[in-house]
Amino acid sequence: MINQLTVIGVGLIGGSLARSLREAGAVGTIVGCGLDKNQLQKAIDLDIIDKYETDVARAVVGSNLVVVAVPVGVMESVFRQLKSHLAEDAVITDVGSTKGSVVEAMRNAYGEVPEQFVPGHPIAGTEKSGVDAGFAGLFHGRRVLLTPLPQTSPQAIELVRYMWQKTGAVVSEMDLKHHDDVLAATSHLPHLLAFSLVDTLVAMDEKAEIFQYAAGGFRDFTRIASSHPQMWHDICVNNREAILQILKRFQVDLDKLGCAIANNDSDYILDVFTRAKKSRDQFSNN
Amino acid sequence: MINQLTVIGVGLIGGSLARSLREAGAVGTIVGCGLDKNQLQKAIDLDIIDKYETDVARAVVGSNLVVVAVPVGVMESVFRQLKSHLAEDAVITDVGSTKGSVVEAMRNAYGEVPEQFVPGHPIAGTEKSGVDAGFAGLFHGRRVLLTPLPQTSPQAIELVRYMWQKTGAVVSEMDLKHHDDVLAATSHLPHLLAFSLVDTLVAMDEKAEIFQYAAGGFRDFTRIASSHPQMWHDICVNNREAILQILKRFQVDLDKLGCAIANNDSDYILDVFTRAKKSRDQFSNN
Repeated sequence: MINQLTVIGVGLIGGSLARSLREAGAVGTIVGCGLDKNQLQKAIDLDIIDKYETDVARAVVGSNLVVVAVPVGVMESVFRQLKSHLAEDAVITDVGSTKGSVVEAMRNAYGEVPEQFVPGHPIAGTEKSGVDAGFAGLFHGRRVLLTPLPQTSPQAIELVRYMWQKTGAVVSEMDLKHHDDVLAATSHLPHLLAFSLVDTLVAMDEKAEIFQYAAGGFRDFTRIASSHPQMWHDICVNNREAILQILKRFQVDLDKLGCAIANNDSDYILDVFTRAKKSRDQFSNN
Repeated sequence: MINQLTVIGVGLIGGSLARSLREAGAVGTIVGCGLDKNQLQKAIDLDIIDKYETDVARAVVGSNLVVVAVPVGVMESVFRQLKSHLAEDAVITDVGSTKGSVVEAMRNAYGEVPEQFVPGHPIAGTEKSGVDAGFAGLFHGRRVLLTPLPQTSPQAIELVRYMWQKTGAVVSEMDLKHHDDVLAATSHLPHLLAFSLVDTLVAMDEKAEIFQYAAGGFRDFTRIASSHPQMWHDICVNNREAILQILKRFQVDLDKLGCAIANNDSDYILDVFTRAKKSRDQFSNN
């Protein structure tokens, strides 16, 4: 069903998708597209893609499916470049972590959101970046959320769903606004907190001595602070409203907890910790 | 050198220490002490301890080293119980995450801090609790900080240092106040944030739907929210000043980051993320 696939942005996500579809025998030719020829050549050497183009317009010629896997801040520019070069029945999807802004980018580029565009988001990744960091099993058992619009073509959705299922992912559909709220809470805010905490500690610790005494809890808690700064900048800017809303809620709750500690309010502290532990334990058991 | 060791509190830390010393052949008899006979019997069944007592006074008779591995909120009560039953030359140490409060607890119990008491803190652990969760390798390659006072006996320090070295830990000494400040930053605050974030999400998510869409980043970030609520309550209460100080700093920085997102201040956001990533990457490489 996928004769020729173009992956624009052959990094952690785009590269892993190509590896996975290749391994599953689910695609004929894979064309990679990006700005960094060294990375693209590496992708060829690793047999992840068949050929590459640095020009979006050329990269999409002849493909019946195009996956845009670039930071969300660059989506609009990519959409503009591919607009008049895509085959009429070709399907476009993306992997961006913010869906409202990507749909907006498409609207800006195309004038209206075309029916063959299926906004998508694989909830998978690591703190690493680049084609080297990818692996075929990245999406196995992970969720992929599609956020189609009323005008989105059922056939287009079907093709994108097929593609993700071939990677072993569990595909479901979700309202676009709901997606952005949920991800702000479970992904974007934790990243903000991790970046912010590490930066606070760096500022107070000229000799980087503090980190010497950090243990496994700190290591895991701050792992996501090693994530790609530009990508996460783009996410913050592109999901601003939802992020600020959940951040505000968190700040209010954190302030209450701080007051409880200052006031020696053991009941309050224990209540928060006990509720949190209960939910986190349930999450682990799922 | 350790003829008989008493471990008061045979949980994750106390149990792992006993396992490790046993495996290293570094100790003659190990006496466990605690409140829960089932847990203590389990420790005997697992060959972690040789015998147990539920009474502190009886548990320390004949031991030349006593390790107090209970939540820091219970330290003073334990110190009071063992006070007049300990052999005169027996050494006492503890494993509490807050050292100022434990020394204070000892001062309250004994009137003054005895020279044979060596405050200690192994920077190791998991989010799990109980004797089952322990393992002999828990301290291998991890740091143990001792925070002796001017009056602390060098021989007592030597014995405690010897004990931890036998577990494979790297032992160093640190000023007590500095310990509490450093741990507030690298351990206590991250735990607070993880507990608080999970609790915020639970409150806004009646159907626990949000957690379904959480990925590996969230899983690692919130792992420590599965930690023991009472133990962490005790730590918050017992390292209040240092925790409130670093929490305040973090809140100010987080607020600035939130403002930068609200104001679309890309430079500020990128600066924070880039500095944090650089430091976190260095930490990973150590």
